[in-house]
Amino acid sequence: MSQGLFFEDLCVGQTASFAKTITEADILLFTAVSGDTNAVHLDEEFAAASPFKGRIAHGMLSAALISAVLGTRLPGPGTVYLGQTLKFRAPVRPGDTVTATATVTALDPAKKRATLSTICSVGGRPVIDGEAVVLVQSRPD
Amino acid sequence: MSQGLFFEDLCVGQTASFAKTITEADILLFTAVSGDTNAVHLDEEFAAASPFKGRIAHGMLSAALISAVLGTRLPGPGTVYLGQTLKFRAPVRPGDTVTATATVTALDPAKKRATLSTICSVGGRPVIDGEAVVLVQSRPD
Amino acid sequence: MSQGLFFEDLCVGQTASFAKTITEADILLFTAVSGDTNAVHLDEEFAAASPFKGRIAHGMLSAALISAVLGTRLPGPGTVYLGQTLKFRAPVRPGDTVTATATVTALDPAKKRATLSTICSVGGRPVIDGEAVVLVQSRPD
Amino acid sequence: MSQGLFFEDLCVGQTASFAKTITEADILLFTAVSGDTNAVHLDEEFAAASPFKGRIAHGMLSAALISAVLGTRLPGPGTVYLGQTLKFRAPVRPGDTVTATATVTALDPAKKRATLSTICSVGGRPVIDGEAVVLVQSRPD
Repeated sequence: MSQGLFFEDLCVGQTASFAKTITEADILLFTAVSGDTNAVHLDEEFAAASPFKGRIAHGMLSAALISAVLGTRLPGPGTVYLGQTLKFRAPVRPGDTVTATATVTALDPAKKRATLSTICSVGGRPVIDGEAVVLVQSRPD
Repeated sequence: MSQGLFFEDLCVGQTASFAKTITEADILLFTAVSGDTNAVHLDEEFAAASPFKGRIAHGMLSAALISAVLGTRLPGPGTVYLGQTLKFRAPVRPGDTVTATATVTALDPAKKRATLSTICSVGGRPVIDGEAVVLVQSRPD
Repeated sequence: MSQGLFFEDLCVGQTASFAKTITEADILLFTAVSGDTNAVHLDEEFAAASPFKGRIAHGMLSAALISAVLGTRLPGPGTVYLGQTLKFRAPVRPGDTVTATATVTALDPAKKRATLSTICSVGGRPVIDGEAVVLVQSRPD
Repeated sequence: MSQGLFFEDLCVGQTASFAKTITEADILLFTAVSGDTNAVHLDEEFAAASPFKGRIAHGMLSAALISAVLGTRLPGPGTVYLGQTLKFRAPVRPGDTVTATATVTALDPAKKRATLSTICSVGGRPVIDGEAVVLVQSRPD
């Protein structure tokens, strides 16, 4: 599926998910690409003495899974990402499995824009919630 | 600097930046951590035929640089990331250097929260803008 | 789509593709995971003097894209990979876009096995051909 | 050793091995280069509920170690990889050490081709078996 869904394929309530276990390797590679070397992610001694009582994954690493849902499943390739809001609710620790779920909440046919609620959860508990806005291509005639 | 700035160290207008060139390797590693295999990032033939006229980096990859500014410079380690809004203004291509800049716009002493405008730019042109909200520790007495 | 197609969803002739541009970063990361440090992939001076007249990607790197088609599209998650044959027809160079295509050629309902022809091509020219055999789950009653 | 063995250096029964521990980082990097985001490799919750009872490495990741034996040891650099067959016998899990062993089984002096049996094993138990065919340069006069 190099081409994802078209605007006409979408309806309010449509939903898709992508899940991934966050490992030490994810934290290391996200550090590399982001440049975020905050000790709370990399230094167990510092993190153990912090309010988190141990290392946590970067919040934006879990948020990155939303990109996978939007870019590969709903709406999928062809989508143009216009905006995202994120509220970080709880920390994610190495070994946690994060499920990112996107659900269409509004469709604007004039502008070909879709709004989706985007929630990341661990064991059914939200760790991030927010909203995405995407531009979706119309089906060619 | 394992410990960042305290709430009392912050003032409105304070600013910090972090810049990074986005390479093919960044796109590949971000694909791994996010699971986002959207063809517009990985498949030059698909991307060349798309409105982007070539492969682009994941929007959330550039957004990840905001995490680096907040987590390592302003306010730095110890900060708790509460929220982020993102508007994706323009695509980022392999080889582009993205500068993420955070500027304190509001301080809430009762809640120890800081609001920062967060802009990512390439060659002086914004590619992402938005706002971050962080919880900042008070200086120990 | 955490769960892929079931055996009952398959028919002979069904086809799916996955394409990816092979960059320097791919060659480096494949070197890391495989341990294959052959100079023909890493040493431009050696490779330029070889019959290939320049560095080429690892053959098994292009073959890895077959894994993406089978594991994410046809049949997708849940599939058990039983076997693969590969004939390397032509070299792949950094910058080439490789398209891996799998097409169901035979179905064995007794054993729940599917055989797929698997072809990797660059610009319409085959670089690898071969055959995959997979075990596919039956749809639950 | 930029130049490997010549055809005249080979004899039936000659053998070489390469071993590597498959870590979380290998699985993540192989995901990036292959594009294979199958949940059985990345999502511990999905994989735990699957017949594998936990995440497994990509089969082609272990197969990649055969490329290392052929490309760096037997016959080594200069070899042209013509074909490979693979039968996946058992899953490989994060932390397993995979040993890939290649043994020359036939030599065709007219075509300068060598056939090698190729076995990947974990703790002495085969996880992949198959056969490689390679073209080997003659020793310059």
